[in-house]
Amino acid sequence: MLEKAESQGRIARLQAELQAKGIDAAFFVYPIDVYYFTGTRQNSLLCIPASGEPTLLVRKSLARARSEATLADIRPFPSSKELPQLLGPGVQKVGLTFDVLPVQQYNFYAKLFPGCQLADISGLNRELRSVKSAWELERMRESGRNTSSVFRQVPQFLKPGMREIDLAAEFECRLRKAGGEGYVRMRAFNQELFMGLAVSGANAELPGFFDGAVTGRGLSNASAHGASLAQIAANSPIILDYAGVFEGYIVDMTRVFAIGGLSETLMHAFYTSIAIQSRLAEHLKPGAICEELFLEAAAMAEKAGLGSYFMGAPGENARFVGHGVGLELDEFPVIAQGFKVALQAGQTIAIEPKFVIPGEGVIGIENTFAVTEQGGEKITDIPDDIVFI
Amino acid sequence: MLEKAESQGRIARLQAELQAKGIDAAFFVYPIDVYYFTGTRQNSLLCIPASGEPTLLVRKSLARARSEATLADIRPFPSSKELPQLLGPGVQKVGLTFDVLPVQQYNFYAKLFPGCQLADISGLNRELRSVKSAWELERMRESGRNTSSVFRQVPQFLKPGMREIDLAAEFECRLRKAGGEGYVRMRAFNQELFMGLAVSGANAELPGFFDGAVTGRGLSNASAHGASLAQIAANSPIILDYAGVFEGYIVDMTRVFAIGGLSETLMHAFYTSIAIQSRLAEHLKPGAICEELFLEAAAMAEKAGLGSYFMGAPGENARFVGHGVGLELDEFPVIAQGFKVALQAGQTIAIEPKFVIPGEGVIGIENTFAVTEQGGEKITDIPDDIVFI
Repeated sequence: MLEKAESQGRIARLQAELQAKGIDAAFFVYPIDVYYFTGTRQNSLLCIPASGEPTLLVRKSLARARSEATLADIRPFPSSKELPQLLGPGVQKVGLTFDVLPVQQYNFYAKLFPGCQLADISGLNRELRSVKSAWELERMRESGRNTSSVFRQVPQFLKPGMREIDLAAEFECRLRKAGGEGYVRMRAFNQELFMGLAVSGANAELPGFFDGAVTGRGLSNASAHGASLAQIAANSPIILDYAGVFEGYIVDMTRVFAIGGLSETLMHAFYTSIAIQSRLAEHLKPGAICEELFLEAAAMAEKAGLGSYFMGAPGENARFVGHGVGLELDEFPVIAQGFKVALQAGQTIAIEPKFVIPGEGVIGIENTFAVTEQGGEKITDIPDDIVFI
Repeated sequence: MLEKAESQGRIARLQAELQAKGIDAAFFVYPIDVYYFTGTRQNSLLCIPASGEPTLLVRKSLARARSEATLADIRPFPSSKELPQLLGPGVQKVGLTFDVLPVQQYNFYAKLFPGCQLADISGLNRELRSVKSAWELERMRESGRNTSSVFRQVPQFLKPGMREIDLAAEFECRLRKAGGEGYVRMRAFNQELFMGLAVSGANAELPGFFDGAVTGRGLSNASAHGASLAQIAANSPIILDYAGVFEGYIVDMTRVFAIGGLSETLMHAFYTSIAIQSRLAEHLKPGAICEELFLEAAAMAEKAGLGSYFMGAPGENARFVGHGVGLELDEFPVIAQGFKVALQAGQTIAIEPKFVIPGEGVIGIENTFAVTEQGGEKITDIPDDIVFI
């Protein structure tokens, strides 16, 4: 359960930003945004004025929102006649998250508040949430421990002859029994992920819609990511890239397994990914520039003779090597070309150097780190080694 | 894989609608919309003119879209300079699905096509998709067979002392091994579902954000639906309400299980739900009015003395008893108060009369039916009976 002091701290940080930007109030309707500020994801409109008390207007379920949320002012969702009275006459500019708000919802509010300018606060919202409090870091560590515990069990159920989907199902079953919530929230339009990826051999090399180095074949063109019905190949890397979700907080991690052995090229690529991860972890301190970290990683890949395989097959290379993670899988910051912002203490970032080597497979590592003054704190803390079965 | 003739039929139906409404072209960017017309869900913009050939502009992955899609004209996504040249000078009105399109995406297209009026085609799109072709009905039946096969296995793994999450994990594991894609698409803003609900006792009675009769406690306030860590109660109904997804096509079904016995009140409510289902199934013929079916169901519940428990706990009753299902869990039509439209042959609808009886539990039935001239064809075809363990 979200603590009241935690919720108040988040609201105060938002209000300071609203005041600095001359925005009179913010409306949140996207469930995970409402959850971040209030501790409930019930279907609601959260109105946070630039100063003063927020109001939660609940469509469904009011009883449950009242039992979960930290706020004092929780009311049933009013009629379209009453709703405009929510804002005082001084309110001229209202912030909404245009990155996720459907046009129909926008039009609903634009019609009800004709005198107001509606402004996009997507960036502000994502920047705010990228920095985790001490309370949130504890949630992230707990998610890391729980998710890691399932990765430790893989040698008990990974068997020769299994299909990718069997491996996925066994992993997911254990993650659920460990309390994993399963539903992985992504903010980017058009992205979707069902828990994670259990992929091997040529299926792992396939490009796809997914904004990562690895997508997988999936079970059909409708669900074109993750495990397929194909049997897992021997002597080829098996990738388990999963997101564990606990109290809404996501950690993202990847480990490589193999039935039999792996080629020298693959092992060289693996050790290069470990070296890149180590170098980046050293740099995960406040003030480091995201783009510079990506360029350093790309240079290390290049120097190892693996530049064209870095973060994608030749021609399909993604220009990133890490991403923020928290209540959503794709949070700020992004360790990517063009992302010239400085890291802040308390940001949590999945670092995932990977290589896609056509005909050989996909190999690499991924861990979730917290940015600290001493460098990255690894919160998915089990050995990085390839596990040979 | 989607067949070319199937894709062409869908595009032709859309084009007839566009012409009738005076819309010059439709843009689709939401993945499942793109999949419906092309057979690929790669990250793309699909442009369908009111007459002539559609174009698929692919952001990621072009190679994969080319291997999956049925269209002749598939190109890389152009620059913002080149994109406006896509439309001829005669195009003045472009349709987009405002129900799911984020404001940022809308603004991107509004800026690139300043001379065009952007119009909402959400309703048109949903109506079109509600009627399944013979090919789609085969996919739905296959999804029904696969999902039903997992329901049949429940007595093998449902054991006294299990937690709700253990039951969920075992069910989900088998659904995945049967080829279930897992990711359940919902169109409504603010809705989300992780595969389904395995809930029992007081947890099943809890109201929630989910637009159904049953929500469940979930594992935290962040994922406030589905199974919890609580032990399954004896002598109380255990609800398994799951969506099976195969080639993107979803069936929705519910069966009740019990460890021990159930009260007379519960059994009376169960037989009432079966009677309501039978009556509605008889009516699932072209021309029947959705609202009238709901009102008939509600009257039957009332007559059985169970009106205040129908589709929700007293005061939380939902005013629906069924919903369209297909590529999304929440398709048209809705068997609900206020939904005064007539059924059409080929629509596929989950009928789910349920009762929430505080202190006793939740009980009912759900099956997915196809609308035919002879009444509802049950495509989740295993016995409806409660299974006592």
